[in-house]
Amino acid sequence: MLNRVRSAVAHLVSSGGAPPPRPKSPDLPSAPSPQTAAPPEAPRSPPARAGSGSAAPAKTVEARACFSRPTFLQLSPGGLRRADDHAGRAVQSPPDTGRRLPWSTGYAEVINAGKSRHNEDQACCEVVYVEGRRSVSGAPREPSQGQGLCFYYWGLFDGHAGGGAAEMASRLLHRHIREQLKDLVEILQDPSPPPLCLPSTPGAPGSSDSSHLVGPQSCWSSQKEVTHESLVVGAIENAFQFMDEQMARERRGHQVEGGCCALVVVYLLGKVYVANAGDSRAIIVRNGEIIPMSREFTPETERRRLQLLGFLKPELLGGEFTHLEFPRRIQPKELGQRMLYRDQNMTGWAYKKIELEDLRFPLVCGEGKKARVMATIGVTRGLGDHNLKVCSSTLPIKPFLSCFPEVRVYDLTQYEHCPDDVLVLGTDGLWDVTSDCEVAATVDRVLSAYEPNDPSRYTALAQALVLGARGTPRDRGWRLPNNKLGSGDDISVFVIPLGGPGSYS
Amino acid sequence: MLNRVRSAVAHLVSSGGAPPPRPKSPDLPSAPSPQTAAPPEAPRSPPARAGSGSAAPAKTVEARACFSRPTFLQLSPGGLRRADDHAGRAVQSPPDTGRRLPWSTGYAEVINAGKSRHNEDQACCEVVYVEGRRSVSGAPREPSQGQGLCFYYWGLFDGHAGGGAAEMASRLLHRHIREQLKDLVEILQDPSPPPLCLPSTPGAPGSSDSSHLVGPQSCWSSQKEVTHESLVVGAIENAFQFMDEQMARERRGHQVEGGCCALVVVYLLGKVYVANAGDSRAIIVRNGEIIPMSREFTPETERRRLQLLGFLKPELLGGEFTHLEFPRRIQPKELGQRMLYRDQNMTGWAYKKIELEDLRFPLVCGEGKKARVMATIGVTRGLGDHNLKVCSSTLPIKPFLSCFPEVRVYDLTQYEHCPDDVLVLGTDGLWDVTSDCEVAATVDRVLSAYEPNDPSRYTALAQALVLGARGTPRDRGWRLPNNKLGSGDDISVFVIPLGGPGSYS
Repeated sequence: MLNRVRSAVAHLVSSGGAPPPRPKSPDLPSAPSPQTAAPPEAPRSPPARAGSGSAAPAKTVEARACFSRPTFLQLSPGGLRRADDHAGRAVQSPPDTGRRLPWSTGYAEVINAGKSRHNEDQACCEVVYVEGRRSVSGAPREPSQGQGLCFYYWGLFDGHAGGGAAEMASRLLHRHIREQLKDLVEILQDPSPPPLCLPSTPGAPGSSDSSHLVGPQSCWSSQKEVTHESLVVGAIENAFQFMDEQMARERRGHQVEGGCCALVVVYLLGKVYVANAGDSRAIIVRNGEIIPMSREFTPETERRRLQLLGFLKPELLGGEFTHLEFPRRIQPKELGQRMLYRDQNMTGWAYKKIELEDLRFPLVCGEGKKARVMATIGVTRGLGDHNLKVCSSTLPIKPFLSCFPEVRVYDLTQYEHCPDDVLVLGTDGLWDVTSDCEVAATVDRVLSAYEPNDPSRYTALAQALVLGARGTPRDRGWRLPNNKLGSGDDISVFVIPLGGPGSYS
Repeated sequence: MLNRVRSAVAHLVSSGGAPPPRPKSPDLPSAPSPQTAAPPEAPRSPPARAGSGSAAPAKTVEARACFSRPTFLQLSPGGLRRADDHAGRAVQSPPDTGRRLPWSTGYAEVINAGKSRHNEDQACCEVVYVEGRRSVSGAPREPSQGQGLCFYYWGLFDGHAGGGAAEMASRLLHRHIREQLKDLVEILQDPSPPPLCLPSTPGAPGSSDSSHLVGPQSCWSSQKEVTHESLVVGAIENAFQFMDEQMARERRGHQVEGGCCALVVVYLLGKVYVANAGDSRAIIVRNGEIIPMSREFTPETERRRLQLLGFLKPELLGGEFTHLEFPRRIQPKELGQRMLYRDQNMTGWAYKKIELEDLRFPLVCGEGKKARVMATIGVTRGLGDHNLKVCSSTLPIKPFLSCFPEVRVYDLTQYEHCPDDVLVLGTDGLWDVTSDCEVAATVDRVLSAYEPNDPSRYTALAQALVLGARGTPRDRGWRLPNNKLGSGDDISVFVIPLGGPGSYS
């Protein structure tokens, strides 16, 4: 299955020409990464929106192993086999020799305990150079080094129903972000407020008389202030959408399987942007204090958005589901009785008389990790899932899923960080069995055992977090020290130092 | 105009029979209130949802003065004239003689500076007795004193485009809340978890074979925990909806003018429920600390909900508006250029090429107090507005407005309150020129000048807050001590003591 996904990736990557010039300045480490191994990249036109018909025919590429791990792990064939071993569940990290990840980032992962065939988590860590597409004045400009922007990038992609979407996102999402930032290269480096309007692209219609289309006359004479920061947020948001639309296009030829949650960090011009679509989580641990940098998107946290959609577009429920929520399944014999319910506008509960259509299955049901949309999927944001259908039905679920992340911004310049201040990213395999406070305690315990300038301390911390969530095999299961079951899910963790020896360089 | 609204009110109030038995227990003060002056009330069937056709023909009632103020102000004809004087702007409070408001609540108000013809704010302060409709087992039960529930109620209603909706809501919303609570009387007094399902009402269909309507088979075997608190929240939410639906029905016969924001406090069984729909605001000042108890609903804070609705239901935009947001008005000559925009899923901004349909007027535009939906209305939640149309158009705005409040809960039993701890409710006339911190400073300054057990201190505080926001006439305007303009709007303030001499009794 994976080779079909790989074909899709190769098609996108090879549909252009020469790679963008990488600056040789010392602040751009060339750490090993999945992208390093990819074929040279061509200048491409900006990704088109779905329906614009820009998808080109697929090209065949060589077959690959039936599963892959991030290339920064530098796994040998034997290491790759160990990484795929559900019985041993060895914790994998980049080797302690050779080049480190940017900022001395720590990383560790472990495969699930037989939950799915392969590890469906994927990861990416990259330094990305953005060359401006053209000057603000609209004139095409000569490519020249040193005028572009550089961002640091970390991504965790937790796949479900197949590894294809996570694999594709891990290889391409940062390129979509780069594409979105191309128009902003000069603007972001200019301290004056961003221009609200830019000149037209060559050949576009200029002025024409369309005054008949103008709505009611307005007393709206002012204009909004738009910050540089909000342009980066908009670029990341649109990159997620373009990535999702590309998956929709490519799946037709290449069957991009399943979907994935995406948790992404972009460091650009002094600020950390944390974008989350799904149920992964990011926290900053700073001087022992916990700063949440994301929230999870699940059928429970997004209940009202989902119900509103079902209420406004009942055709999406296909006559099989009701948008109302009930605290338990209604039995047909209860018709006419009065049951507690919640509508899309309610946070409280009230009683209603049970009518025939209330016997339909609820759009949102269950609690906690068992909560589901249309009895099928437990996350409500992410990339992919374009083929996902309700079990034993042809009803599509994708209309209820959102590909848009919530982006939170953290200004690194507002605080003097020490080497023990870290940003921790983890897939739900970590957080299902580990609280924020337990992570903060592990941060303190592990980092204090290492010299502050020892760059291997962050990998040691990532490994400790993964080991602590996985547990050890005992009493017919993977168990934690308190004898509770550890996480049987794939677990992937990044530890990004905010004041470490390699940070910001 | 008001007499038409009054007719509507009288119709509702007179459509039943005997008043509910008021307990004679000493914990139910019979403070003067608007409702005291209303005709005796009959037992009514629960309010029906819109479209259920339960509206009865209107009855004529006596004509009234062309504006009214809360009866607890006990205004004489001369006082009523002073209250309607836009030039003098006298601050009005209940008289310091006779019965006080429950809990020794403080209240003050002032009319606007010629902004509208009359004061469109209304207020209500009531003690409401709820008699259970029937026992949980479904059997009708004998009315008997002492088995019911009692709640304390405060409401501020800030009207716009006429005073009818605010007037009607101030007289009826707490009755809708009582109606919703009738089914819960026994349940809320029983410490065991609420039953998820209640027996059918007599004559309702019992069991029937409807298994063909049941959706996909479920692994959903558990049931949700529903708290007593969430039942009260649901009752308040539905009461707002029933109130709004009643306005929709009654306006046909009686032209309920305009709409209103509603900020309501219910104290029931140890908890304070603050329900807000609009741009009024509630804060608790406790030991000098500020605890926000509401948030404002405006075109800015609800931008994404509004845009999503316009995106999903473009027919509501009538070809006159675009759901996209732009930072300023686009000129027709800018067609083809690239303008910053935000779509419904975005918090950041990005550039897009301006196309013909982008020249339509934006659904949401402007900033701060000038922000508008469809270039018309500056609040996005509240009651009424069923007749509101876009200027110079027949396009209705009501589909974009929500009548549902956000309800926040504060447990009074979790903290030992002192007489200086207060809940402050104010219409936007207060908050437009007064920050939360300034209110907290005034609370400290005024209350410390009175003995803790002096019940008049809360009215003095409400007056100080209104005076501080109104200012004094100077330099051709009402000005604050810093020479800035004071609020020219109607200003109404409740100060509810949380640990005062009369609280909870």
